[in-house]
Amino acid sequence: MKYTILGTGAIGGYYGGMLRKSGLPVDFLARSDYQHIKEHGLTIDSIRGDFILRELDVYDSVQNLPDTDVVIVSMKTTANENLSELLLPIVKEGTVIFVLQNGLGMEEELQEQFPHAVVVGGMCFICSQKRGPGYIVHLDKGPITAAPLHESDFPIVEKMQSDFVQAGIEMTLNRNLNHARWGKLLWNIPFNGLSVVLNANTKEIMDNPYGLSLTQKLMEEVSRGASACGCNLPSGSIAGMLESTHTMAPYDPSMKLDYDHKRPMEVEYMYRKPLQEARKNGADLPLVEALADQLSFLNQMVEVPV
Amino acid sequence: MKYTILGTGAIGGYYGGMLRKSGLPVDFLARSDYQHIKEHGLTIDSIRGDFILRELDVYDSVQNLPDTDVVIVSMKTTANENLSELLLPIVKEGTVIFVLQNGLGMEEELQEQFPHAVVVGGMCFICSQKRGPGYIVHLDKGPITAAPLHESDFPIVEKMQSDFVQAGIEMTLNRNLNHARWGKLLWNIPFNGLSVVLNANTKEIMDNPYGLSLTQKLMEEVSRGASACGCNLPSGSIAGMLESTHTMAPYDPSMKLDYDHKRPMEVEYMYRKPLQEARKNGADLPLVEALADQLSFLNQMVEVPV
Repeated sequence: MKYTILGTGAIGGYYGGMLRKSGLPVDFLARSDYQHIKEHGLTIDSIRGDFILRELDVYDSVQNLPDTDVVIVSMKTTANENLSELLLPIVKEGTVIFVLQNGLGMEEELQEQFPHAVVVGGMCFICSQKRGPGYIVHLDKGPITAAPLHESDFPIVEKMQSDFVQAGIEMTLNRNLNHARWGKLLWNIPFNGLSVVLNANTKEIMDNPYGLSLTQKLMEEVSRGASACGCNLPSGSIAGMLESTHTMAPYDPSMKLDYDHKRPMEVEYMYRKPLQEARKNGADLPLVEALADQLSFLNQMVEVPV
Repeated sequence: MKYTILGTGAIGGYYGGMLRKSGLPVDFLARSDYQHIKEHGLTIDSIRGDFILRELDVYDSVQNLPDTDVVIVSMKTTANENLSELLLPIVKEGTVIFVLQNGLGMEEELQEQFPHAVVVGGMCFICSQKRGPGYIVHLDKGPITAAPLHESDFPIVEKMQSDFVQAGIEMTLNRNLNHARWGKLLWNIPFNGLSVVLNANTKEIMDNPYGLSLTQKLMEEVSRGASACGCNLPSGSIAGMLESTHTMAPYDPSMKLDYDHKRPMEVEYMYRKPLQEARKNGADLPLVEALADQLSFLNQMVEVPV
């Protein structure tokens, strides 16, 4: 299949680069970095081996992008307000929109805006950073869990899976997107928010009795919210997630990096949408809401860098 | 009456200085500043007029302090672990221990340790800072609400009141210490904690919809905790407190100053004791507890300055 990367940053740059390197046709949209990538290519330093992609099919505007089979949405959800405008010129009947974002509800919104598209959610478990124009550093992990919004689209996701796997990207499939999204939120909600408010990495949070206690309480609320929304997470999910966080290297979640770099944080899709869904289904999550309020406060207090 | 100031800082320095200036006998305990005050006196810059007290009765050790009628405890509660040791040489039968601290439960603890003392609580509404050795700056406000732990001690508190008033310090009396303490916690719990976690002053918190919402939710929980402990705060307490905070000048609560100066924060008496009392009386306060956990986390992460 042919791929188009919407947002050549930490996520889109790495996964798009891996797909391209394996020989698949990939078009990249890069706005601020267009000129740099055009001249110097895309540099990826990866724990699995460094490489540079030269003579990339890179574009500076969606208007110029050729037809494609799969559009990979790899921009932050903070830009989702303008996402449908970007997708409009490239999404045709049957085009796959593969949403590599954190949060909840992105797929439903996109399906509503593009009823004839195939919408698929992707949850990346990766530590990857953009360090400069056209320069991506892949530090750790890399697997993606993919799940179609509609189970009937599962065969298309299996085709994507075979592309990703031959490109060296681990991909697990899940038939239930809602379930997969809530499973990811179980980690994202406590660790992203607490890392910002407590100015701490995952190890510092896990190693401190108060940090651990806050994490557990938040996870219990998220799990309750998931249940209310019809996703009974497997028993042991919380314990398992704590254990795997405990054993992993100290890590700054993406929201911490956003806050430290004075970029807007993804409060809307990572906190507000889950809170709305939970409430709609009768579950109030007061601690998650208080954390979201703290993050919204900080979002509004961030001074835009000059 | 004769007064002894235990802790010649922002609170003890100002109130003790005012009492002394009015002609009352006042002994000051100053440990780190002893030599400086001995040589240069105590300088107080106050909105009500600046003054310097020379040839002060200042002591560097409780062992040397003369007998007294009223011991004013004006150190932070973070030092309360060693408080009874400090009080032991000076508290005799009938000595008044006047606790000018923030939090809950200090008076009950002291009464238990000194059963023959008269214990009185004092809630200061003051903006005062220690800016250097023997140098206090009084920026705003100043009234004290005083309440005896046992109502039968009310006459002694009235005697103190007349001393304070003649010294130019507004003093209101309250017959119910528990009620007065919870009334102060209604403000202290949200604004002290949020100012630290959100890195914001009172105005920034009040002016932001999320800051205001968090404040209100915390106040509602504190009010619920107070009710459980037998203190039904007057209806309109929350609205009144928000209104008066709204109209006051931007202010950094004491906990914010402590955190910014890498001093330990008063989490134990300002959060844990109220939480314990509320729980003992059947009220869980989850948002207050989560905020306390965040502060405890930050307390443990503060690097001690070298």
